[in-house]
Amino acid sequence: MAAGTLYGVGTGPGDPQLVTRRAWALVEAAEVIAYPAPDSGESFARAIVAEAIRPDATEIPMIVPMRAGRAPAQSIYDRGAAEIGAHLDAGRDVVLLCEGDPLFYGSFMYLLVRLRDAYPVVIVPGVNSLSACAAAQAHPLVARSDVLTVLPATLDDAALGEAITRADAVAIMKIGRHMPRLRALLGGLGLAGKARYTSHASLPRQRALTLDEAPDDAPYFSMILVYKGDDPWIS
Amino acid sequence: MAAGTLYGVGTGPGDPQLVTRRAWALVEAAEVIAYPAPDSGESFARAIVAEAIRPDATEIPMIVPMRAGRAPAQSIYDRGAAEIGAHLDAGRDVVLLCEGDPLFYGSFMYLLVRLRDAYPVVIVPGVNSLSACAAAQAHPLVARSDVLTVLPATLDDAALGEAITRADAVAIMKIGRHMPRLRALLGGLGLAGKARYTSHASLPRQRALTLDEAPDDAPYFSMILVYKGDDPWIS
Repeated sequence: MAAGTLYGVGTGPGDPQLVTRRAWALVEAAEVIAYPAPDSGESFARAIVAEAIRPDATEIPMIVPMRAGRAPAQSIYDRGAAEIGAHLDAGRDVVLLCEGDPLFYGSFMYLLVRLRDAYPVVIVPGVNSLSACAAAQAHPLVARSDVLTVLPATLDDAALGEAITRADAVAIMKIGRHMPRLRALLGGLGLAGKARYTSHASLPRQRALTLDEAPDDAPYFSMILVYKGDDPWIS
Repeated sequence: MAAGTLYGVGTGPGDPQLVTRRAWALVEAAEVIAYPAPDSGESFARAIVAEAIRPDATEIPMIVPMRAGRAPAQSIYDRGAAEIGAHLDAGRDVVLLCEGDPLFYGSFMYLLVRLRDAYPVVIVPGVNSLSACAAAQAHPLVARSDVLTVLPATLDDAALGEAITRADAVAIMKIGRHMPRLRALLGGLGLAGKARYTSHASLPRQRALTLDEAPDDAPYFSMILVYKGDDPWIS
């Protein structure tokens, strides 16, 4: 019997309407669906496509403790991969949901390295958070011949400062508790007026603010975009 | 009478199935649709959603001469904005199609600067080429706490080399005639084995190759992704 196919499916930033047609159709047809879930509360990736999931689908939640700055235990992904692999061995396709895009800072990659050699894998890209946050701001992510650099907020000030200085456009990911530090850093670089803060892009609780307006206690799923070009940025 | 709304709609990388549900629904409902088109041949953005366009829709093609290295004349966008503005003034919504994502190196921004002050604008993000090319390769775009830098191939060797050296992951856009130079540059940096070439991501004519396999005459819509992490890149 032929093995099933593993579909790594990006669900986009949060609005079910920003799921691609292909991802939606795969979820509607899926007999087996896997997704990461926090140890308390519901899976964000699952919630985005909940309407499309068949009532009789087999669901494989992978419980990933959400603690900032700590890599989740390998055993969680080992166990998830084994459970997914058992379905694939039995000839059943598995749709693995990934919030945003599977290959853009996604936990999908933990499963991909475990399963890629044994099974056919198809990846369905999703709208990533870069594009979602730029849309929320109606402001360029990057234009013309600009250089865009994407930086995790966990980098130290020296590394962030140097990278920000060199780029034309910057996205700082995973803001969380780093906001006060980032605000000071961007202010020191004279870029406070060009920095925009977005959280929960595309969801009803989306906030698209200037850096000045941004809260000090930013959520993990938030981003600062800096576009250095003068307004009008293109003509 | 209230003015119409301008929708800047990303159509994704090329596969009509990779259009978001919202973008597809907006096109299906649209009475007025605008899009960039080359001076010969069909509009790529239009082709992606052609199936969804109403037969009675008013179409506004904006003919943009496709000559590498030359900014299209402002007059094209002035004229397009005037034509779109006339519909908005008459209370009709206009769906402006953008291949990929509107705010990621998109020509949509030329219209946005011309129309944003006079009309309500809603931007619908699309799957951008970063995510599409990573999916084609089934290889990380960026993971963990990596820094990703996006570079236009038009930069000179010194600028490219320095940026590539500093980043953990690199995307080089708009390859075209720069391929032989990029191949030499990446080889000199010892990164040839980590560089992957993708053209026409998600389309039937997609090519997802190693750098060695890549053609010297690359199309404009092609990308090199470099992920420096060792395989397995995540565990």
